[in-house]
Amino acid sequence: MTRSGPAARSGAATRFRASAPLTTEWKHFDFAVDGPVATVTFNRPEKLNPLTFESYADLRDLVTELPHHDGVKVLVIQGQGRGFCGGGDVNEIIGELITMKAGELMKFTKMTGDVIRAMRECPIPIIVRIQGIAAGAGSVIALAADFRVVGRSGRFAFLFTRVGLSGGDMGAAYLLPRVVGLGRATSLLMLGDTIDAETADRYGLVSHLVDDDELDSAVAALAGRLAAGPSLAYAQTKSLLTRELDMPLSASVELDAMTQALLMTTEDHAEFHAAFTAGRAPDWKGR
Amino acid sequence: MTRSGPAARSGAATRFRASAPLTTEWKHFDFAVDGPVATVTFNRPEKLNPLTFESYADLRDLVTELPHHDGVKVLVIQGQGRGFCGGGDVNEIIGELITMKAGELMKFTKMTGDVIRAMRECPIPIIVRIQGIAAGAGSVIALAADFRVVGRSGRFAFLFTRVGLSGGDMGAAYLLPRVVGLGRATSLLMLGDTIDAETADRYGLVSHLVDDDELDSAVAALAGRLAAGPSLAYAQTKSLLTRELDMPLSASVELDAMTQALLMTTEDHAEFHAAFTAGRAPDWKGR
Amino acid sequence: MTRSGPAARSGAATRFRASAPLTTEWKHFDFAVDGPVATVTFNRPEKLNPLTFESYADLRDLVTELPHHDGVKVLVIQGQGRGFCGGGDVNEIIGELITMKAGELMKFTKMTGDVIRAMRECPIPIIVRIQGIAAGAGSVIALAADFRVVGRSGRFAFLFTRVGLSGGDMGAAYLLPRVVGLGRATSLLMLGDTIDAETADRYGLVSHLVDDDELDSAVAALAGRLAAGPSLAYAQTKSLLTRELDMPLSASVELDAMTQALLMTTEDHAEFHAAFTAGRAPDWKGR
Repeated sequence: MTRSGPAARSGAATRFRASAPLTTEWKHFDFAVDGPVATVTFNRPEKLNPLTFESYADLRDLVTELPHHDGVKVLVIQGQGRGFCGGGDVNEIIGELITMKAGELMKFTKMTGDVIRAMRECPIPIIVRIQGIAAGAGSVIALAADFRVVGRSGRFAFLFTRVGLSGGDMGAAYLLPRVVGLGRATSLLMLGDTIDAETADRYGLVSHLVDDDELDSAVAALAGRLAAGPSLAYAQTKSLLTRELDMPLSASVELDAMTQALLMTTEDHAEFHAAFTAGRAPDWKGR
Repeated sequence: MTRSGPAARSGAATRFRASAPLTTEWKHFDFAVDGPVATVTFNRPEKLNPLTFESYADLRDLVTELPHHDGVKVLVIQGQGRGFCGGGDVNEIIGELITMKAGELMKFTKMTGDVIRAMRECPIPIIVRIQGIAAGAGSVIALAADFRVVGRSGRFAFLFTRVGLSGGDMGAAYLLPRVVGLGRATSLLMLGDTIDAETADRYGLVSHLVDDDELDSAVAALAGRLAAGPSLAYAQTKSLLTRELDMPLSASVELDAMTQALLMTTEDHAEFHAAFTAGRAPDWKGR
Repeated sequence: MTRSGPAARSGAATRFRASAPLTTEWKHFDFAVDGPVATVTFNRPEKLNPLTFESYADLRDLVTELPHHDGVKVLVIQGQGRGFCGGGDVNEIIGELITMKAGELMKFTKMTGDVIRAMRECPIPIIVRIQGIAAGAGSVIALAADFRVVGRSGRFAFLFTRVGLSGGDMGAAYLLPRVVGLGRATSLLMLGDTIDAETADRYGLVSHLVDDDELDSAVAALAGRLAAGPSLAYAQTKSLLTRELDMPLSASVELDAMTQALLMTTEDHAEFHAAFTAGRAPDWKGR
């Protein structure tokens, strides 16, 4: 389902929409919007929620389109059953790939990379909920999210070399060293070994480590907090984190200065001051 | 106070001074020079040592000017009382900001960024002494220092989103991922949560973790060691660490090669060899 | 010794060799090739395996030449005796350096940097085996390797400032912050303190921490695994890890996409699928 009706038509997000309609049905995963929280649920638990050509394409387009869904303030990505996502299916994807030629292969790999780019470009914070395995493309989707809420059953496997491919899939050789350092990233991407949740937490790959039976409440609490907060400030923080990995210090300081000067003119910043002065909690508007 | 007299006039640092005099009085924090160790002390403990327009400006100019204070070899930044620095004062800064227009806001945010740039450009190693809270701008000043000596009461709060602003303040979205990794930096800057000293240490944000009653001796020992060491080598090490975050590998290796070749011609390098051969400790001259 | 005979002549590695012969004797360390595993052994244990002008030069050229040794799939670097490598010898190197002028000094420092560049450019995974001290240039060689297998006696000392030189030697100010974060790298390079194996492991500087009496078996197991694996995939993973530290996200994703599309056409990728379908282990060919 997608949002529609007055809220979708009236909000700021829709002011800069072009003629293309919002997609009304995502066929290759479950998609639900509950107030400000959108949730993608990979729904083939019997096969560890594999990615397919179609689900990559849907994910790319959903994440690209989501900022235009007025009112959505956080995206949760999760998988049904005992694992988060086992990556590309061996039969449905690899079986096809080994028959393809250069042009088609490039279209596929660029599409998968576009998923990661869309996730990092998306101004909406993205939470992944990890129980059991996050493998292959599933591990990179987890890596590209802003928050990884991980149950103690969680495991990560950047297993690309295990299938004869490069460990640098979908930006992993860029992102992983910037999350866990070059040494650990080298081991993980070269060898494709599986690490458990505690190791991942020690490496800095986990945002919140919880018991599995607390995963739902931890994700809901974080999503609720992000949804209730100053969404413009969150969006800009995410944007700066993404951009400044690729920028020198001096330019980053300048970008921060201009961003902050702009945000100082927002209603949310004034609201903080009013609330603080009045001794009450701020009521964030996201503008 | 500032240094003056023969030492200030005769040293190498003063050879490249232009006509501007050194500042004789810093009004918005305590400033003292004890031999080679300069110390800035935020001195409004009753308000958790808030930064004000004036103290940002003083800090920017002092750090810029300090390399011209001949004989100063290390800068310590600390705060009086139960906390290091609570950041910008809500009334004295935020109350003013929400009434300003673009031009004035930009001047303010650029000034705050200039503090961080000056700290990273300063060839003199900078130590921050952290007891209690380092919040907002206080946390970024701590982040931009070379050494963070932190008592067990120490806490860090990059709380910018809590006031409706971007977590990427004064270069934080550049620096923090390079210190603690992108995942942890995302959590800290997006959510603005407070972390304690042990968590900060685990993340790599702490240089020396000590009991609070050992803070003074730990800072003094580190400052003394940096002051007694090969100051030219320290300055160049700091410069390379700053520059090479923004440089590719191959150019960095080249910059290292040229730097090292130059330092191999210094008296300090020869002094090491002479001392080693004689079985005594080196007597560093910083040239 | 070096490889020769039919294997060396027939393989892919030799197709793009120019006229220069492979070196038949490396004089300044032991060099052995056992099947796919090449091993460099620093062999002056009585002096902690110091680097000399000649051994730097040999190491630079061996690592550059090694990819042309057909059949070699992994390089191990190790030292005899109680330490890995104590760095440049005080008498044999520093004693000479302090008498040199600019031109000669530059030749020396560029040569040492070329060792590190060659290690990062080498498509063959490099393992260092660390018992006891890895100091100075020894610590940077360890840092530039892909895998650091470290015994509990292992220690690292980036001790350059202790000899009056810059901590940023041979790319250390570029590499170390990307492995352990800027804060810890600043302490290590500025102060030149020695850290033990457990601290290095906590910092992310250790790939495998083992008891000293398990070092040989751990290195052999890792070398064997890398030698038996999909060598083209490993080489590309290493290349992407090296390149993407210096690339922006979007270009990295593009590079990954093109690399992966190419590797999807390889025999190894097809072999994975065939083996998986047949329920057997893949037989990697490295092409």
